Amino acid sequence: MSTGVWLIGARGSVAVTSMIGALAVRAGLTAPTGCVLESPALRNDALPRLGDLVFGGHDVSSVPLDKKAAALAEAGILPARLAEAVRDALFEIEQQVRPLPVGATQAEVAREIGADLDTFRRRHRLDRVVVINVSTTEPAPPPHPAHADLDALRAALDGPDPVLPPSSLAAYAALLAGCPYVDFTPSTGARLPALDALARAQGLPYGGHDGKTGETLVKSVLAPMFVQRNLRVRTWSGINLLGGGDGANLAEPAANAAKSASKQRVLAETLGYQPQGDTRIDFVEDLDDFKTAWDLITFEGFLGTRMRMEFSWHGCDSALAAPLILDLARLTSAAHQAGRVGPLTELAFFFKDPLGQVPHALSDQWQVLRDAVASYGAPGTPR
Amino acid sequence: MSTGVWLIGARGSVAVTSMIGALAVRAGLTAPTGCVLESPALRNDALPRLGDLVFGGHDVSSVPLDKKAAALAEAGILPARLAEAVRDALFEIEQQVRPLPVGATQAEVAREIGADLDTFRRRHRLDRVVVINVSTTEPAPPPHPAHADLDALRAALDGPDPVLPPSSLAAYAALLAGCPYVDFTPSTGARLPALDALARAQGLPYGGHDGKTGETLVKSVLAPMFVQRNLRVRTWSGINLLGGGDGANLAEPAANAAKSASKQRVLAETLGYQPQGDTRIDFVEDLDDFKTAWDLITFEGFLGTRMRMEFSWHGCDSALAAPLILDLARLTSAAHQAGRVGPLTELAFFFKDPLGQVPHALSDQWQVLRDAVASYGAPGTPR
Amino acid sequence: MSTGVWLIGARGSVAVTSMIGALAVRAGLTAPTGCVLESPALRNDALPRLGDLVFGGHDVSSVPLDKKAAALAEAGILPARLAEAVRDALFEIEQQVRPLPVGATQAEVAREIGADLDTFRRRHRLDRVVVINVSTTEPAPPPHPAHADLDALRAALDGPDPVLPPSSLAAYAALLAGCPYVDFTPSTGARLPALDALARAQGLPYGGHDGKTGETLVKSVLAPMFVQRNLRVRTWSGINLLGGGDGANLAEPAANAAKSASKQRVLAETLGYQPQGDTRIDFVEDLDDFKTAWDLITFEGFLGTRMRMEFSWHGCDSALAAPLILDLARLTSAAHQAGRVGPLTELAFFFKDPLGQVPHALSDQWQVLRDAVASYGAPGTPR
Amino acid sequence: MSTGVWLIGARGSVAVTSMIGALAVRAGLTAPTGCVLESPALRNDALPRLGDLVFGGHDVSSVPLDKKAAALAEAGILPARLAEAVRDALFEIEQQVRPLPVGATQAEVAREIGADLDTFRRRHRLDRVVVINVSTTEPAPPPHPAHADLDALRAALDGPDPVLPPSSLAAYAALLAGCPYVDFTPSTGARLPALDALARAQGLPYGGHDGKTGETLVKSVLAPMFVQRNLRVRTWSGINLLGGGDGANLAEPAANAAKSASKQRVLAETLGYQPQGDTRIDFVEDLDDFKTAWDLITFEGFLGTRMRMEFSWHGCDSALAAPLILDLARLTSAAHQAGRVGPLTELAFFFKDPLGQVPHALSDQWQVLRDAVASYGAPGTPR
Ligand SMILES: NC(=O)c1ccc[n+]([C@@H]2O[C@H](COP(=O)([O-])OP(=O)(O)OC[C@H]3O[C@@H](n4cnc5c(N)ncnc54)[C@H](O)[C@@H]3O)[C@@H](O)[C@H]2O)c1
Ligand SMILES: NC(=O)c1ccc[n+]([C@@H]2O[C@H](COP(=O)([O-])OP(=O)(O)OC[C@H]3O[C@@H](n4cnc5c(N)ncnc54)[C@H](O)[C@@H]3O)[C@@H](O)[C@H]2O)c1
Ligand SMILES: NC(=O)c1ccc[n+]([C@@H]2O[C@H](COP(=O)([O-])OP(=O)(O)OC[C@H]3O[C@@H](n4cnc5c(N)ncnc54)[C@H](O)[C@@H]3O)[C@@H](O)[C@H]2O)c1
Ligand SMILES: NC(=O)c1ccc[n+]([C@@H]2O[C@H](COP(=O)([O-])OP(=O)(O)OC[C@H]3O[C@@H](n4cnc5c(N)ncnc54)[C@H](O)[C@@H]3O)[C@@H](O)[C@H]2O)c1
Ligand code: NA
Ligand code: NA
Repeated sequence: MSTGVWLIGARGSVAVTSMIGALAVRAGLTAPTGCVLESPALRNDALPRLGDLVFGGHDVSSVPLDKKAAALAEAGILPARLAEAVRDALFEIEQQVRPLPVGATQAEVAREIGADLDTFRRRHRLDRVVVINVSTTEPAPPPHPAHADLDALRAALDGPDPVLPPSSLAAYAALLAGCPYVDFTPSTGARLPALDALARAQGLPYGGHDGKTGETLVKSVLAPMFVQRNLRVRTWSGINLLGGGDGANLAEPAANAAKSASKQRVLAETLGYQPQGDTRIDFVEDLDDFKTAWDLITFEGFLGTRMRMEFSWHGCDSALAAPLILDLARLTSAAHQAGRVGPLTELAFFFKDPLGQVPHALSDQWQVLRDAVASYGAPGTPR
Repeated sequence: MSTGVWLIGARGSVAVTSMIGALAVRAGLTAPTGCVLESPALRNDALPRLGDLVFGGHDVSSVPLDKKAAALAEAGILPARLAEAVRDALFEIEQQVRPLPVGATQAEVAREIGADLDTFRRRHRLDRVVVINVSTTEPAPPPHPAHADLDALRAALDGPDPVLPPSSLAAYAALLAGCPYVDFTPSTGARLPALDALARAQGLPYGGHDGKTGETLVKSVLAPMFVQRNLRVRTWSGINLLGGGDGANLAEPAANAAKSASKQRVLAETLGYQPQGDTRIDFVEDLDDFKTAWDLITFEGFLGTRMRMEFSWHGCDSALAAPLILDLARLTSAAHQAGRVGPLTELAFFFKDPLGQVPHALSDQWQVLRDAVASYGAPGTPR
Repeated sequence: MSTGVWLIGARGSVAVTSMIGALAVRAGLTAPTGCVLESPALRNDALPRLGDLVFGGHDVSSVPLDKKAAALAEAGILPARLAEAVRDALFEIEQQVRPLPVGATQAEVAREIGADLDTFRRRHRLDRVVVINVSTTEPAPPPHPAHADLDALRAALDGPDPVLPPSSLAAYAALLAGCPYVDFTPSTGARLPALDALARAQGLPYGGHDGKTGETLVKSVLAPMFVQRNLRVRTWSGINLLGGGDGANLAEPAANAAKSASKQRVLAETLGYQPQGDTRIDFVEDLDDFKTAWDLITFEGFLGTRMRMEFSWHGCDSALAAPLILDLARLTSAAHQAGRVGPLTELAFFFKDPLGQVPHALSDQWQVLRDAVASYGAPGTPR
Repeated sequence: MSTGVWLIGARGSVAVTSMIGALAVRAGLTAPTGCVLESPALRNDALPRLGDLVFGGHDVSSVPLDKKAAALAEAGILPARLAEAVRDALFEIEQQVRPLPVGATQAEVAREIGADLDTFRRRHRLDRVVVINVSTTEPAPPPHPAHADLDALRAALDGPDPVLPPSSLAAYAALLAGCPYVDFTPSTGARLPALDALARAQGLPYGGHDGKTGETLVKSVLAPMFVQRNLRVRTWSGINLLGGGDGANLAEPAANAAKSASKQRVLAETLGYQPQGDTRIDFVEDLDDFKTAWDLITFEGFLGTRMRMEFSWHGCDSALAAPLILDLARLTSAAHQAGRVGPLTELAFFFKDPLGQVPHALSDQWQVLRDAVASYGAPGTPR
């Protein structure tokens, strides 16, 4: 099942790490560590293989992929020898990365995006193309009546003023072109009633939001522990220190607010109440893609005894995110093939702020994922 | 369903905290925080209520319960006003605590223990008595052929030399007297083939070992996270600093070794391999019952990137253990009533070193527990 | 040498803890742990003794001292039995605490404050009265031309509009009444050219700003370590989580900014450059006076190797601050007696944001302090 | 002032990192970060320059230096491009590294060592040669009467049985050959009365023991902070997790004990009492030269309030140690030239377990060092 992976933000850290990783695994140069679908419990023939993925994408930047690769190697995010080893294959991907189209109206931009997707699909004879947003996080857009209604949206897109934020325009274009869409960022993406309607009309699935790669991942296993032990969490406070392109952008208050909100949801949903405390994101340029998160949890046990737990997490964000991009491409492709339509709630395992009414405990999300994977390949499922 | 809770080590910190806690909850003075069976998902009428528990026990110490209570209050383990409020009720329990019997042979001691259990049951007209070992952790006993065979054991117990460590003698006596037995410590307890045979012969269930209240609890949710994300744990090292009676005893190399082994099992079982690193237990008298555990986990992600996580846990051991004693008494009573015989694998949720081939991920253990609780009370189950 | 200690904010946590502590030490109920002047290296007969201190003060709150004491005991900041033991003596101090005067002009308020100070001094036949500000931290005031010139200030104070923030008005009033003034908060206090002129004209010393009791204290020993080892600090980031009255106030952005700036100065001054990273203060009500600070330091060593250090500090702010109030009262009294005029740079040891060009390494500040203490009592010094 | 640096253990991590570092700094490829003598406050013309150092040494291993360099680069301890850039210069040093001599008696081995030192000095026309021990840590040797008396020692060395541990034999040989000796390890080295007598007879200085590069360094600034604030440290516990050659050796109980004792001294000496708690060293091979140390400090403040602090230190041991080797060579050379004889107490700044009655607070040690450096170059001092 040959699957195209079209990345919005194709020249960014996550995108390029995922490309190089896929090439390196395919070439047998490295193990698929961090690829969830490669763990024994989830391996399934109904999924496209890592080697079946074909990459392309849009970006507003024009820094060549190999230059970005060199920068990632320099920063210790990937081994220089791997970047070197896949240089030629990366150069082929370079040919598939196109500047984000511009146009007089958003409708026109969407058509151009769709045309790029069509060209990509035809040129590589792909069974399907999954569009994944890994571009810079946007601020939440101002509300607009056309967000709620597909016809109104179509009309508005023909007007001179932008109606959709870039992520939602990409989602619109992708769905229109028959491509499932996944948002790895906290941006709006397909999360508008009008776009949900479009996805359903097109018979397409979509997924998101905001890849879960660090502090929130840990929260999603610790919070259930407190619940299951019937211990009362009184405060849960955290800080995330990170540099990198993503960090720089998150230093903007609006983007920071979008992200912090994503990160808090797991507590209220899992605990059933909101403990005191906030989650901060601080930009510290020198830390680059190596994020340090620290959390303090104070809790109460039997007879009111006060106790506490701290953790610090020192992870490489791109290295944690990139294999999930590969997983999401394969899963969304299989879900599409299996006829799934609308929000892919089974992907909650991957996201800080998942779509739909879903469990927030990681172990529950894992079971939902495992069942979904099994169902994609169940006998009788259309392949 | 009136249930007796007979504690071996009834004058220790865990025992006295559990007694005072049960009395205080019953009197409406405090919430049952930390009592697993009081969480909405597990509440079940098939379980004896907290208020149905009647306490008694054996100890080699003769420090009165209220003196111990005062010491616990002084150390900040329980609020002085609670200890004060349940003083009279605690004095009633004092009457049920007896010195550990002595005798010429271990068989004789066992008979005396059984006689104490009978008296307790009759005096309080109890439906059943659950014996729980919360006494000082023993070193692992030297192997003995009689451990493997019930008849050989019976014969050996009549001889002049001790064959069983105290925890196993207590288990033997309890089972002989028709009482289910649970070991909250890492001591041998019922974990001998001869005693398993006795339990089956008597139609009795038993449970253990080693209450999971801190570092191992956290391990049992973090290790599955690494597995589910297909991240490779390279090293996992930890240290536990604790004082208190338990800490003093664990400073003995033999007891320390027994406990450290308990604490490591979760990693190999969950990860499927044993990462480098050890778990230490250090006695620091001044810390008393407030234990600090610190763990360092180094792991590898996509493209071999090295990452790390640290946590420190600052818990009050008795406050964490005591409500579990109440849970275990209620569960074991209900399991007995429901006709369960042999090792209670459904109690794995509570233990560092659970009996049988059981899951080690906390969330899986929780589901097993939930299903078991449901089954105890299922229609058609003998009540 | 009988010394009055007049506290602005006399009903706050720091104030009441310092009063109770002084009373308890005097009564032999507790050791003077945390009182710097009681360490062998600094004990000096030229200083007023702890028992010579007489307390009074102003506050805008009217909560009685013993009610505040009970709240502090309830929160675990001081032992209930100590609060009980000094109840009568505390009631005597209660008589010396007066509402902050109000008036038509700031000049009038200053006169009222001065009158209260005179009454206090006369009633207790005090050799001198030291005024110490431990009230709520203010936002930085808007600049005003009268801040730079004493005559202009005098004129402006007679006008209808407020010219000085409360801390500076207190400083003005104190100096006018012949009392040395110390600011334990980051507020402006005496830190205005016009007030410096007044202090000099009156022959009075003054001190400040912002008691150093946690994260900054640790910074002031760790930063010199990196300097002395010639290791390059690349980033230093921190977060302070605290509740309590002080925490609530610091949640206000303006006060928070004032405090964060105080906390960063030590790094630039000690390292000679400003590493990347910020210091945050977050209000988490439930933590009350128990503050947790966490800092991450990344640094570079030989051949560019990157290394890191983390610390977390869990301190009780009032317990750390209160003994320093006693130290500052005694030192300022002795400095006054020794004829010191103007900013007391020798008190840098106590402050996050000390007055004047002073060393910022704690060990250097300690030596300056020790030399100053010795000089106060040197033969020939006026006593 | 051309100075030979003769390293016992010349093929180890610390040795090779120090050689490559010296070459790289000399070639202008890297800054001398971590070299204490290169900080502005200590720069002094009386010291040999970094570029004046000439390297040689003994080792029992025969792994070539460039192979070790490649391994260090692979492990991330030094940049591969630096190792590459100094390859030729390193090859020249390779010619000066000789196998540790063997002989029928220890006297004979000492003569061979001395001969190697003489050859080295003559070949490079060196003003002096400093011998520094950076070989594997030894267990403490059994006591022997000859350790206390130089004549007895001379006699015993001629016998068939070994009298001295390798580090002391190296010290004996060095001193006999007119070379100052420094021990960077916790091994015995020159720390025997007979060897002190020899050093004095030869008019030579010596230094040690046990380079202070991590946890103990931090202790030496934090412990004085608690003293100066008159806070009572109740417990101080720590664990060091490390791999590498040194770590493997320290896993041996005897070596571990030697090292742990070194690490505890600073507390008792600085605080004036020994708080509860121990320091552990655990071998975790995979961590290699990147050591993680974690310490928990619990302390008591005003009115008995309990507080706590934790730190974790993640340092690269060789990168921290190597520049100190360069500092020690230069300082010892200058001290020798300045006529210093016997134990170099001014080097306490560098050691966990310094010689003599010296301050243990880092800031005091720094001042002693600064004064010593100044005195080496004072006018009138023989150069
Ligand atoms: N790495 C993680 O762990 C993680 C986790 C969750 C979410 N995310 C999100 O993934 C996204 C990518 O992260 P990154 O570290 O690769 O960031 P990055 O800054 O390295 O890359 C973002 C890329 O998007 C491009 N871009 C910006 N606007 C665009 C637009 N309108 N259309 C197309 N391309 C555009 C940029 O030019 C850049 O190349 C961010 O939004 C981040 O918040 C990352
Ligand atoms: N608190 C926890 O979190 C936790 C977790 C797991 C296991 N445990 C285990 O629970 C046990 C109790 O812990 P604790 O903190 O209450 O210890 P403790 O020292 O306060 O109490 C132990 C009691 O057992 C008594 N005892 C000793 N030998 C006995 C014997 N042969 N027969 C009867 N009584 C005997 C002692 O006199 C004492 O009163 C320990 O074995 C501990 O390892 C505790
Ligand atoms: N505790 C520490 O470690 C520490 C360290 C440095 C600085 N400080 C500063 O010390 C001050 C006191 O801290 P706290 O914890 O006692 O706070 P708190 O809120 O408990 O007490 C402040 C008191 O000041 C009173 N007050 C407010 N405005 C006043 C005014 N204009 N005149 C007179 N009284 C006034 C309040 O009514 C209150 O009683 C704060 O400014 C804090 O920032 C504390
Ligand atoms: N790196 C640090 O931060 C630090 C701090 C304090 C002390 N030290 C000490 O420095 C020493 C060296 O550390 P390392 O990391 O380089 O260790 P390493 O294992 O890499 O090197 C030790 C070298 O000594 C050699 N050796 C062993 N026995 C010898 C002998 N008898 N004569 C000559 N050579 C011998 C070994 O072959 C090896 O090449 C250790 O003793 C360590 O405890 C290191
Ligand atoms: Na910590
Ligand atoms: Na930490």
